[in-house]
Amino acid sequence: MGKDKQKKKQRKIKKLVEEDENNIIDDGNHLVQSVEKLQELQEELEKINEEKSVELLKVEQKYNRIRKPVYERRTNIIRDIPAFWSTAFLKHSILGGLVSTEEDHKIFKFLSSITVEQSEDVKSGYTIIFDVEPNVYFENRKLWKTYTFLEENGHTKITISSIQWVDDKGVDDDSFFRWFNEVNEHDEIGEAIKDLWCDPLSCFHHEENEEGGDDVAVKDSKDEVVEDTEDQEQDI
Amino acid sequence: MGKDKQKKKQRKIKKLVEEDENNIIDDGNHLVQSVEKLQELQEELEKINEEKSVELLKVEQKYNRIRKPVYERRTNIIRDIPAFWSTAFLKHSILGGLVSTEEDHKIFKFLSSITVEQSEDVKSGYTIIFDVEPNVYFENRKLWKTYTFLEENGHTKITISSIQWVDDKGVDDDSFFRWFNEVNEHDEIGEAIKDLWCDPLSCFHHEENEEGGDDVAVKDSKDEVVEDTEDQEQDI
Repeated sequence: MGKDKQKKKQRKIKKLVEEDENNIIDDGNHLVQSVEKLQELQEELEKINEEKSVELLKVEQKYNRIRKPVYERRTNIIRDIPAFWSTAFLKHSILGGLVSTEEDHKIFKFLSSITVEQSEDVKSGYTIIFDVEPNVYFENRKLWKTYTFLEENGHTKITISSIQWVDDKGVDDDSFFRWFNEVNEHDEIGEAIKDLWCDPLSCFHHEENEEGGDDVAVKDSKDEVVEDTEDQEQDI
Repeated sequence: MGKDKQKKKQRKIKKLVEEDENNIIDDGNHLVQSVEKLQELQEELEKINEEKSVELLKVEQKYNRIRKPVYERRTNIIRDIPAFWSTAFLKHSILGGLVSTEEDHKIFKFLSSITVEQSEDVKSGYTIIFDVEPNVYFENRKLWKTYTFLEENGHTKITISSIQWVDDKGVDDDSFFRWFNEVNEHDEIGEAIKDLWCDPLSCFHHEENEEGGDDVAVKDSKDEVVEDTEDQEQDI
């Protein structure tokens, strides 16, 4: 009987150990299943986000179409205002500071128009175009720079018109126009020109301050600035 | 007759001068009119942009509603995975590096859930919520921080739950949890937690490299990187 008791006890222990092992295996399976379900949900969320992007893009495209004729009317009106674009450009808080050489100021007198064209599908980029009157500096009548946002790797491809300088005129290192020959820096200039394009009139109207400064009315910064604090816990 | 001729000539000159003056005045009027028309068009563009913003917001809201039940299912599944959020948080490329003290690592063991809630109207902000198990460090069971984007001035109001520390435990200057008591810095942490919220599984799965490094799979940077150049002029 003593032996039987011992055997019974051993069987019991064995059973407990097996149960424990099964539990661990079950837990493992359960964990794998949870992670798999999580993966499926993540894919579902990504699909939802893609659908959202498509819908947002359609809205952007729709309003681009709505804005286009308004911009065309604007371009026509601007033609009647002497030196509108060069004035607005030189008064822009960021852009004005980039035009520092005497040569540049002379070249800007030949600027007849600035245009920003969104690419057909909006999200894939934009082109900046400068129309210039015949001048002694370069042979181009149009200078342009195109930013193409590449979906596959998140990078931006930049293509340029490349300035054909006459007798190396204006190729000064400090010249703003070097930007049209460069593809590897000052990308924020493109964004600043887009900003100018959105509201050139506010730059055109801007009066320089007494220090000849650059206090162009810049839109409210969206930088996060901390305000009030409520330091009481709150149900959410 | 000589006098007559002279008078006639003077009248002619007077007329020309008057015409010139009128032209100048006309030109001035014309310029004023052009600028006024430009102002009207600018207002038209702003109205279009406002309509676009409303439409974009509606799309965001719609997809927020679609995502909500998916996130809720995700939260339920995550409950079955031990230490999911703390593991994902500590492996996140930016967030992990902020949890450096021994105390912080102990506190993170009590983290049961992280939630990011978009505000009702989406554009006005979001709340980050940490659910924590009872612990010896602080009395709160919920830590939260709310970012409210203020439309009127472009600023962000930050409200916080404020941690009730037990016996000044964990108030070390280097503690990550100080962030919950602060309203004036490290705002990028909120954005990083939103990033974690969007895809915590990729952080959870991330294996640290041999140097114990932080090579978490970060999404493709959208920084502009210059690629090819075409330096031939092109008709546009």
